[in-house]
Amino acid sequence: MGKGRMEAFSDGVLAIIITIMVLELKVPHGIDLAALQPLLPVFLSYVLSFVYLGIYWNNHHHMLHTCQHASGPVLWANLHLLFWLSLFPFVTGWMGENHFATMPTALYGVVLLMAAIAYYILQVMIIRSQGDDSLLAKAIGNDMKGKLSPILYVVGILASLVEMWIAHVIYVAVALMWLIPDRRIERAMGTRGT
Amino acid sequence: MGKGRMEAFSDGVLAIIITIMVLELKVPHGIDLAALQPLLPVFLSYVLSFVYLGIYWNNHHHMLHTCQHASGPVLWANLHLLFWLSLFPFVTGWMGENHFATMPTALYGVVLLMAAIAYYILQVMIIRSQGDDSLLAKAIGNDMKGKLSPILYVVGILASLVEMWIAHVIYVAVALMWLIPDRRIERAMGTRGT
Amino acid sequence: MGKGRMEAFSDGVLAIIITIMVLELKVPHGIDLAALQPLLPVFLSYVLSFVYLGIYWNNHHHMLHTCQHASGPVLWANLHLLFWLSLFPFVTGWMGENHFATMPTALYGVVLLMAAIAYYILQVMIIRSQGDDSLLAKAIGNDMKGKLSPILYVVGILASLVEMWIAHVIYVAVALMWLIPDRRIERAMGTRGT
Amino acid sequence: MGKGRMEAFSDGVLAIIITIMVLELKVPHGIDLAALQPLLPVFLSYVLSFVYLGIYWNNHHHMLHTCQHASGPVLWANLHLLFWLSLFPFVTGWMGENHFATMPTALYGVVLLMAAIAYYILQVMIIRSQGDDSLLAKAIGNDMKGKLSPILYVVGILASLVEMWIAHVIYVAVALMWLIPDRRIERAMGTRGT
Repeated sequence: MGKGRMEAFSDGVLAIIITIMVLELKVPHGIDLAALQPLLPVFLSYVLSFVYLGIYWNNHHHMLHTCQHASGPVLWANLHLLFWLSLFPFVTGWMGENHFATMPTALYGVVLLMAAIAYYILQVMIIRSQGDDSLLAKAIGNDMKGKLSPILYVVGILASLVEMWIAHVIYVAVALMWLIPDRRIERAMGTRGT
Repeated sequence: MGKGRMEAFSDGVLAIIITIMVLELKVPHGIDLAALQPLLPVFLSYVLSFVYLGIYWNNHHHMLHTCQHASGPVLWANLHLLFWLSLFPFVTGWMGENHFATMPTALYGVVLLMAAIAYYILQVMIIRSQGDDSLLAKAIGNDMKGKLSPILYVVGILASLVEMWIAHVIYVAVALMWLIPDRRIERAMGTRGT
Repeated sequence: MGKGRMEAFSDGVLAIIITIMVLELKVPHGIDLAALQPLLPVFLSYVLSFVYLGIYWNNHHHMLHTCQHASGPVLWANLHLLFWLSLFPFVTGWMGENHFATMPTALYGVVLLMAAIAYYILQVMIIRSQGDDSLLAKAIGNDMKGKLSPILYVVGILASLVEMWIAHVIYVAVALMWLIPDRRIERAMGTRGT
Repeated sequence: MGKGRMEAFSDGVLAIIITIMVLELKVPHGIDLAALQPLLPVFLSYVLSFVYLGIYWNNHHHMLHTCQHASGPVLWANLHLLFWLSLFPFVTGWMGENHFATMPTALYGVVLLMAAIAYYILQVMIIRSQGDDSLLAKAIGNDMKGKLSPILYVVGILASLVEMWIAHVIYVAVALMWLIPDRRIERAMGTRGT
C-alpha cells in the first residue's frame, strides 16, 4: 500500500483544522479598535495553536518522508494522531474565550499531551514496519525533544492548577523548542544519498 | 480516465466531513469542568463517527487501490457514497446534543445503513468495470463483514425504537468489527506480486 | 506550467463547497421526527445542489483531462468558475430555508446561469490554448447540452417569477440531463489511443 | 525534501480560506430582494478578497514552480504566509458587515500588508535556497510590483484614517495590477527550455 493517500488525507485534515480555528475569531459588532480588544486572547491562543499545528505538519512531513509503505497499524496510528489534533479548535476556543482561565488552560495541555503521545505511537509503528534497518529510527536518534515534550506538558498541566502563567510559559517554550526544524532526518537521508 | 482526481476529491470531502463534525462541540461559556459535562454525549458521538469515517476512508483507500480506471458509473457511485457520509455531521450532532434519544439514534442508524449500501454499490461498480478477472472480487471473497453490517444496522434501527442502548451497542460493535483492518486486499495483491 | 495544482486546488474548493453546504442543515432542538419536518426543503435543496456540484466536478474532471498546460487565462477562467460555485451554499440555504420562495428560487437560477457561463468561458480558454488541433473542441462537438443549459436556466429564472414550480422542474430536469455522464470526451480520447 | 506536500498543504489551506469566507454571507430571513441589500457590502468585500486570494494562489503556484526543494526555512516562511492569509475571512467579514467603516478598512490593509511582506520573505528564502544561479531571482527581475504593493498598502492604511474611499480605490487598484498574470516566470523558464 502506498503512502500517497495517507499524506493527502493528513494534509487535508491538518489544513482544515488550522483554518477553521480562525472561525473562533468571531467578527465583532463594534467598528473601533476597542471592539477588537476582547478578541486579543482568542487571537493569541490562535497564534499558539497555529504554530503547534505548523510544527506537527512539518514533523509529520519529515517523518513520512522516511516511510515507504502504509500498513494497517500505521494508517490507524495516523488517524489517532489526527483525532487529537482535531480537538485543537475546541480547546483553543475555550482557552481563548475565557482569557486563559485555569481549566481551559489545563485541558489545552491535555490535548497537547495526547497529541504528543499519538505522534510517538505513530513513530513507533513506522519504525516497527521498517524492520531492523529503520531509517526513521536512525534519524530520530535518542529523540530528546520527543521524550522531553510530554514531560513538559504534564508539568504544564499540573502548574496550570496552581499558577496559571507557568503553564502558558511552558506551552510557548515547547513550541519554540520544536520551531527549530528537525534537521536530523534530513541529515540521515543525506548520508544515505537519498 | 485516471482515478487520481477521484481519490483526491474523496480525500478532500472525507477530510472536511471528519473535521467539521468537531464544530458541533460548541465552546461552552463556563470555565470549570462542569461546563464540559453536557458536552460528553456530543463528544462520545463524535468519537464514534470519527472511527466510522476513519474505517470508511481506510477501506475506500484499499478498495480504490485495486481499481485502475474511474468510469462514469464508478465516479457517480463514489459521489453517492460521499453524499451519505456528508450527513454524518448532522446525525452525529442531533444524536449527541439529545443525549442519544430514540429518534436521533434511529436516524443515525439509517445514515449508517445508507452509507453501507452506497459502499456496496461502489464495490459492485468497480468489480463490474474490472471484468471477469476482477482483483477486487477476489480480494473481498465472500465479503462476510460487508454483508453482515447492513443487517446489523437494520437490527440496530429497530432496536433503537424499543430499547435504545441495544442500538448503541450494535453501532459500536460493528465499528469494532471493521477496525480490524481489511487484510484480504493486501493479501490478494501480495499473491499477485503487486 | 503543469495543471496538477489547478486540479488539486479545484478539487479542494469543490470538496469544501459540497461539504459546508451541509452546515445549513442546522441540528434541530426537538427529538422527534416532527422536528425534522421544517428541514425537509433545506434537505431537498441540499440534494439538488449536491447533484449539481457533482456534475460540475465530473465534467471539470473530464475537461481538464484533455488539457496539458495551465496558462494564465485558463487559471483565471477556472477561478472565475469556482467563484460562482462558491455561492452555491448561500443560495441553497436561502432557497431551502424559505421553502422554495420566489426570489430565492430566481437567485438560485441566476447562480446556476453564471456558473454555466463561467464553465463555457473556461472551455473556450482551454480550446484556445490548445490551438487548431484541439482535443477538447473535437470532444465536445456541437456541445448541445452546454448550449441548452443556459437557455433553460433563463427560462427557469423567468418562470420562477410567474409560476414557481416550473422553475424547480427545470432545475431538476437540467441536472438529470447532465447526470448522463459525458461520454464524448472518453470517446474522443479513445479514438486517439490515449 | 520534495515540495509536493508543501504545495498540497498550501492548496488545501488556500482552498479552505477562499471557501469559508462565503460563510460570512449569512442567509437572510427575508425572501425579497430587499433582504439581500444589507449583504451587498459583505458581498463586495467577499469579491475583493476572493480576487486577492486568487492572485496569491496564482503567484504562489508560479513561484513554487521554480523551486525544487523545500528546506526548513522555506517551509516556515510558507506557513507564515498562510497565517496572514488565514486572517482574510476575519477582516473581510469585519469590513463587509460594517459597510467599509474606517477601522475595519485600515485593518484590512494591515493584513494585506503583512501578507505581502510574508510573500516577500518566502521569495527571499526560496532564492537563498537556490544559490547564485537562482531561477526565481532571474524570473522576478527588479520585482517592481512586489516592491510597489506594500508601499501602496501603507498609503491605503493611512488614507483610510482620513478619507476612506481612497483606501478602497487603492486596494482595488493593487488587485487589478496583479490580475495581469506574472508572465516573467513563464518567460524565464521558457528561455531555459523547461
